[in-house]
Amino acid sequence: MTADPTAPAEALRATVLGSGSWGTTFAAVLADAGCAVTVWGRDAATVDEIAREGRNSRYLPGIDLPAGVTATLDAHTAVAGADVVAVAVPSQRARDVLVPLADAVPPHAVVVSLMKGVELDTDQRMSEVVAQSLGVDASRVAVLSGPNLAREIALRQPTATVVASTSDTTARLVARACASSYFRPYTNPDVVGVELCGAVKNVIALAVGISQGRGMGYNTMATVITRGLVEITRLGLALGADAETFPGLAGMGDLMATCASPDSRNHTLGVHIGRGMGLDEAVVATGGTAEGVKSCRSVLALATSLGVEMPITSAVVQVLHEGLPVDRLAGLLLARPHKAEGV
Amino acid sequence: MTADPTAPAEALRATVLGSGSWGTTFAAVLADAGCAVTVWGRDAATVDEIAREGRNSRYLPGIDLPAGVTATLDAHTAVAGADVVAVAVPSQRARDVLVPLADAVPPHAVVVSLMKGVELDTDQRMSEVVAQSLGVDASRVAVLSGPNLAREIALRQPTATVVASTSDTTARLVARACASSYFRPYTNPDVVGVELCGAVKNVIALAVGISQGRGMGYNTMATVITRGLVEITRLGLALGADAETFPGLAGMGDLMATCASPDSRNHTLGVHIGRGMGLDEAVVATGGTAEGVKSCRSVLALATSLGVEMPITSAVVQVLHEGLPVDRLAGLLLARPHKAEGV
Repeated sequence: MTADPTAPAEALRATVLGSGSWGTTFAAVLADAGCAVTVWGRDAATVDEIAREGRNSRYLPGIDLPAGVTATLDAHTAVAGADVVAVAVPSQRARDVLVPLADAVPPHAVVVSLMKGVELDTDQRMSEVVAQSLGVDASRVAVLSGPNLAREIALRQPTATVVASTSDTTARLVARACASSYFRPYTNPDVVGVELCGAVKNVIALAVGISQGRGMGYNTMATVITRGLVEITRLGLALGADAETFPGLAGMGDLMATCASPDSRNHTLGVHIGRGMGLDEAVVATGGTAEGVKSCRSVLALATSLGVEMPITSAVVQVLHEGLPVDRLAGLLLARPHKAEGV
Repeated sequence: MTADPTAPAEALRATVLGSGSWGTTFAAVLADAGCAVTVWGRDAATVDEIAREGRNSRYLPGIDLPAGVTATLDAHTAVAGADVVAVAVPSQRARDVLVPLADAVPPHAVVVSLMKGVELDTDQRMSEVVAQSLGVDASRVAVLSGPNLAREIALRQPTATVVASTSDTTARLVARACASSYFRPYTNPDVVGVELCGAVKNVIALAVGISQGRGMGYNTMATVITRGLVEITRLGLALGADAETFPGLAGMGDLMATCASPDSRNHTLGVHIGRGMGLDEAVVATGGTAEGVKSCRSVLALATSLGVEMPITSAVVQVLHEGLPVDRLAGLLLARPHKAEGV
């Protein structure tokens, strides 16, 4: 039985697995909403600093965490007694972190994935990885996604988000656990659509970065984002997602925040490509690769297998991986036959 | 009978009424697409400069117009023989410009409105004003709207737009007349939705400006735009518009370009308000009022009469016109009961 979704957040115990930027920020969000929050992390110095000083100076320099946040190095202790378990570890390591905790998560707890992308070996969405690794039913799993740049939230700037679950009870419980004066969750039953938006947005952010690196302005940015969302929507509909998810907070909202922020790695790497760097050079200049560089090919392969046309994703693949000169990108995006707007 | 929509643009004669920034830019777009273009304007110096030097240094400094653009002070001459007449005069003066031309517009010509907003005395959309003033059937009128900041288009940066008409033949003719390597039109039958987006976006741009003036970042911007679009969509559905128009280029696309650009008057005025100025002071600092300052009240009145909830528009009205302190705006936007995402 899942915890009562109408219970006040004050009565809830929450655990966050992951002490990075987003995990620590979401712990602060939960605490500000009234939960008693424990953060689990692997890094002893970070955990100690969160527990003793209420800070995470590595990932959130200059920010004081609310009083209700503590931290531990022991994941089993962290999840014991939790009503809500939030998972914010690197996507490709989630399974390794979660499998050993399968027996430790209380039977009544709900689990919320804060992760984006797809598990590379299995092609599973992160909520599927969570459910399978912990051995919990999908109805006890939620996904949280939206225009949620961590640092702005840690500064308590107002934003909204989507909590998606196949179970409305689960979604409402998570929403209640994190709602505050600056953080507004909306529930949505469309888990597939919300997770697809999180995975494909990085490809579109690369395309926006490339166009801005070429000196293009706001019209081009808005066009690439808007038409990018159309192709994400086409793919989503082919996978059974709900069309309404895509113009919402987890789709357009997250895409817009990602493309506007100078902190997005995908966007930054795209700018370097647009200015004329090759991929290897751009990866070095960005300080590492970006999620969309890998995922653009998987997304295009999936779209092709479903007969879905994704011209912007295809153009990104051609520029990054097939040697298409960037100055031919605009032509590729705009030179198709005239057609009606829409999906 | 309307001109053949499959005819090459090279064979089309186009006229633009209005020699301001957008009118002159659209004349260049039409010429680059292959049309022979005549611009009509009231200002002798501007018309002379366009005709003799291929420039409009008042509105598009530093930009050379294509060879196919000429100009005249005589509106009757301008529209005689035109296949496409584009109207880009100030919205509140459109009727005065058009009524005297009712007999001069060729019977086969289509008319495309580049104007935004609503005629104040009549509450008519601009395409209705065009059709009524010229005495042409709505099927011969189109509306063009999208992420179309004039200067970026005049610099031939890639963008896309929506051509909306109740007649697909008319929409396709206009699309063909303006399509080029940097300007991509999509057709859409939803004239009401496209014009509503153009009218309400200024209210949302004010809200985004206010939040940025208060120091809020990209999450807040993306949230206000995304939820703003939800309330525009709600109003649109109540007026019979098509839900798909709103996340498209004339809705989300235009809103995003407007809110990102530092040149938008509505956005700039909002920033001044957000920084603590009163309305009168902000109007002076902006160099004049902005469209959304007036229209927010009409939009809210329309929504109220239809029983449509528009919390962001309502907050803007309260801040601009009813003395609500700006620091209570965020609370007003986010403090509503939890609910499901969607329209």
